[in-house]
Amino acid sequence: MDGMDRCSANYLPLTPITFLERSAAVYGDRISLVYGRVQYTWRETLLRCTRLASALVRMGIARGDVVAALAPNIPAMYELHFAVPMAGAVLCSLNVRHDAAMVSTLLSHSEAKIIVVDYQFEHIVMGAIKAMSERREKIPLVVIINEYDQPPSHIDREGSASGYLEFESLLESGKLDFKIRRPKDELDPIALNYTSGTTSRPKGVIYSHRGAYLNALSAVLLNDMCSLPVYLWVVPMFHCNGWSLTWGVAAQSGTNICQRNASAKEIFDNISLHKVTHMGGAPTVLNMIINAPTSEQKPLPGKVTMMTGGAPPPSHVLFKMRAMGFLIVHAYGLTETYGPATVCSWKPEWDSLPQDKQAKLSSRQGLQHVGLEEVDIKDPVTMESAPADGKTIGEVMVRGNTVMSGYLKDLKATREAFNGGWFRSGDLGVRHPDGYIELKDRSKDIIISGGENISSIEVESVLFSHPSVLEAAVVGRPDDHWGETPCAFVKLKDGCSASEEDIIKFCREHLPHYMAPRSVVFKDLPKTSTGKTQKFILKEEAKAMGSLPKQTSKL
Amino acid sequence: MDGMDRCSANYLPLTPITFLERSAAVYGDRISLVYGRVQYTWRETLLRCTRLASALVRMGIARGDVVAALAPNIPAMYELHFAVPMAGAVLCSLNVRHDAAMVSTLLSHSEAKIIVVDYQFEHIVMGAIKAMSERREKIPLVVIINEYDQPPSHIDREGSASGYLEFESLLESGKLDFKIRRPKDELDPIALNYTSGTTSRPKGVIYSHRGAYLNALSAVLLNDMCSLPVYLWVVPMFHCNGWSLTWGVAAQSGTNICQRNASAKEIFDNISLHKVTHMGGAPTVLNMIINAPTSEQKPLPGKVTMMTGGAPPPSHVLFKMRAMGFLIVHAYGLTETYGPATVCSWKPEWDSLPQDKQAKLSSRQGLQHVGLEEVDIKDPVTMESAPADGKTIGEVMVRGNTVMSGYLKDLKATREAFNGGWFRSGDLGVRHPDGYIELKDRSKDIIISGGENISSIEVESVLFSHPSVLEAAVVGRPDDHWGETPCAFVKLKDGCSASEEDIIKFCREHLPHYMAPRSVVFKDLPKTSTGKTQKFILKEEAKAMGSLPKQTSKL
Repeated sequence: MDGMDRCSANYLPLTPITFLERSAAVYGDRISLVYGRVQYTWRETLLRCTRLASALVRMGIARGDVVAALAPNIPAMYELHFAVPMAGAVLCSLNVRHDAAMVSTLLSHSEAKIIVVDYQFEHIVMGAIKAMSERREKIPLVVIINEYDQPPSHIDREGSASGYLEFESLLESGKLDFKIRRPKDELDPIALNYTSGTTSRPKGVIYSHRGAYLNALSAVLLNDMCSLPVYLWVVPMFHCNGWSLTWGVAAQSGTNICQRNASAKEIFDNISLHKVTHMGGAPTVLNMIINAPTSEQKPLPGKVTMMTGGAPPPSHVLFKMRAMGFLIVHAYGLTETYGPATVCSWKPEWDSLPQDKQAKLSSRQGLQHVGLEEVDIKDPVTMESAPADGKTIGEVMVRGNTVMSGYLKDLKATREAFNGGWFRSGDLGVRHPDGYIELKDRSKDIIISGGENISSIEVESVLFSHPSVLEAAVVGRPDDHWGETPCAFVKLKDGCSASEEDIIKFCREHLPHYMAPRSVVFKDLPKTSTGKTQKFILKEEAKAMGSLPKQTSKL
Repeated sequence: MDGMDRCSANYLPLTPITFLERSAAVYGDRISLVYGRVQYTWRETLLRCTRLASALVRMGIARGDVVAALAPNIPAMYELHFAVPMAGAVLCSLNVRHDAAMVSTLLSHSEAKIIVVDYQFEHIVMGAIKAMSERREKIPLVVIINEYDQPPSHIDREGSASGYLEFESLLESGKLDFKIRRPKDELDPIALNYTSGTTSRPKGVIYSHRGAYLNALSAVLLNDMCSLPVYLWVVPMFHCNGWSLTWGVAAQSGTNICQRNASAKEIFDNISLHKVTHMGGAPTVLNMIINAPTSEQKPLPGKVTMMTGGAPPPSHVLFKMRAMGFLIVHAYGLTETYGPATVCSWKPEWDSLPQDKQAKLSSRQGLQHVGLEEVDIKDPVTMESAPADGKTIGEVMVRGNTVMSGYLKDLKATREAFNGGWFRSGDLGVRHPDGYIELKDRSKDIIISGGENISSIEVESVLFSHPSVLEAAVVGRPDDHWGETPCAFVKLKDGCSASEEDIIKFCREHLPHYMAPRSVVFKDLPKTSTGKTQKFILKEEAKAMGSLPKQTSKL
């Protein structure tokens, strides 16, 4: 249309940096962040992030450079989510459970110029740097974060890195008149998140300023997060940037309650002390909360909305959380979708259903949030949509502005993931008659026994309903006759007991015979730092077990 | 960064059309719209809009064509907000208070291909068409909307347009398998809104899909509108597309309560009947509500959040509304900013202040909402920011993604408005020490008396606090000695009386002497359809009055 003009008055690249600036302008005196005795206001957070961005630039950080971070949910980690983009750089938050070898691999792959590391994980980074030196790779500068509000402890520890830059000193060297480097294009990268590696070699998922902005607002909306929320950090910030809520809480000028560790006691204490309104956590956190000793539990000060995701929470867990007063928002997503992509939006008409029916309905993955344009269940070959029959299994595919920009240095993998114009999640699911989708399994976790597809998730949900079972995972065990048979790995609750026979019998009572596990292993389950069970480890274990002896191998 | 790819999997033009699609998918059975006995679900609304878009395309509507609408807040008007963009076209909602001459001017200027008109305003359009025919201009096709749920009434009226297409028949001719025409670029126009013309010739303000999407979400957030709101339509949908909430209510899968007229009785009845959670209205609506006869008032069923704007609401009005149980959200914006641009965000610490202080604080215009990047008070010549002293007057300027694309066919005016990289609002204001801005006047409404700037708004707010005054407006009256003196136009409340002397005396008790009106005229104030006082008419009147006689012209 004639008369239109595009200029800085009406077009600015979308970026979550504006959320911080606005909170500092509108709610400058409001507490932005609390960590033990440490607290900052939004005005202070903006000033600290500005100084930090300035300091990074003075250290030589250029547009597009990667700054890595290895830290738990502490203030520095939150500040890096704004300061690094404000320096025009890309934040690469690493999983604190990685070992030195993995960290060295990711530092090499990302070509990080700086790594900011919490004192607790200094030894990991030192190990990584050593490995990189030995490989004659360019090593990043190291910045150490001391514990806040305490005398620096790392200097006295053995193998200390006293020669390294210290975070607060670095921050103080920055200038307040620093001119924030806004993205030149809203598709410029803001973050690099390596997939948690439940299955394969980690891939570097690139997030854009635009995607981060839109998914942050979507996460706010799907949590019904009104202005001035009090958000408790349990979801690691290094996990999809805290499911996009590092930025989202700033959009709503909320208060971030940080905690180094996330024990049930700390969670209940912080909820009570700070009148937390919102939080998030993987199903393992829900498990921890409902199984916390009564002595550690505290009554909730008000409604606490808790977003969960990462794996479908078993119905009985959802049920117990609700009974405790938590309002559970069940979302689903992947690293590639900035965390939450779909949400099982609650419907008022469900209120009058029996509790078990409610839990069943809300354990589904639902539909796209407001910022994602489409979700579908498709045949991965023909790309045809599956009917909404609750039965036909297809691949969960999404498309929209909150899908990653691609995999770093792996255009081939990017194009494969986007083949057909949709992002292929690798998850299998069905669409129910009401349109909501439900995950059935990861493509690679489906168990094929005698030609039948067995959803490991379905078997697990039965195991979870056993009164003695705390955690469970089911994988395929090789079988000479059936190809595979379901093998359950189970962790029992403290003080509970159950035999292999008990478990198998229980499953046979609740499942078709062929779906019930044929073998049960009792043990602690290997987990990623985000609480996902590392099934590939269990699969290796099941593989090593070999086929069941013949006499028991008939169903 | 290497590995990035942009394709339909991760980039789609932002458009509010997705809000409708998502509501139909997630909340298909939920009521989308109620109008008397008529109601639709979100599934039905999507189907109706799809049919309507299809029908428009079958009528020959091409991408970028303008479809005009002249209707009150009825279902068709809401549907056009989605159906027209879904046809790839641009919606031009016209003010129902325009006369035939103005409508003909705007139809010509916009080159509308179709005009959809409510039966009540058919005669206006017929007059416009007649004028266009006489000017030998290309005339648009006319589509008449009959009253819903009633036998067509217009056919029997004199001068009927029985030859015209009827809205429901047109809609029914559309196909459900119509492929929605999404914008090719998110900056493609979605709407054309003519400024309400308080001062000058209307200008056609172009909105983009991107801006509409972002301002709709911003309006949702600034109203703390959680999912599933019940929204009462008082703000005309033709006014900045209902302050962006035509689209915003769809983003939150809310229920739209439509009403043809907005009397106090209808407002109270609908709030009570439908358990309204959100609404909006100009300060005149607030006035109407607080002055409604007790017989028409009904207790609110719950918290009702009401966004107001368009003119700064007098403190005592805000105060009374709150006492009635309304939670007032005071926003500010212009047609050029898709409606709301700033909001006087409430601060919890204000809760403990005296009521009059609270009202005073919240009658300010505040700061940018989450979707607008910046607001400033600037010297229009030097572009320097005014200090935050609450005194230095400058022009309110904004920039961000929720600023219009430009003025249709007037690139010169667009460039003037954007001169310096900011949108110049034409409003004068100050910045307070807490950062919030407060309007002092329109640039052209400031009164200059003896070299002193007098804010007409400040004088008006004193007049509003007079117990007998219902409405007031102050303009400059020419004066041989002082240049101008303030002249007040006042409408008294029913059954109240006050003399010119009373009013002047009252003002002198509350204002510096030079700011008090020197003359008072009692009369009904001329208004635009959106409730803004048409000061240019009053200025003409004051001009015609000429200078005050000399003996009274000394301060």
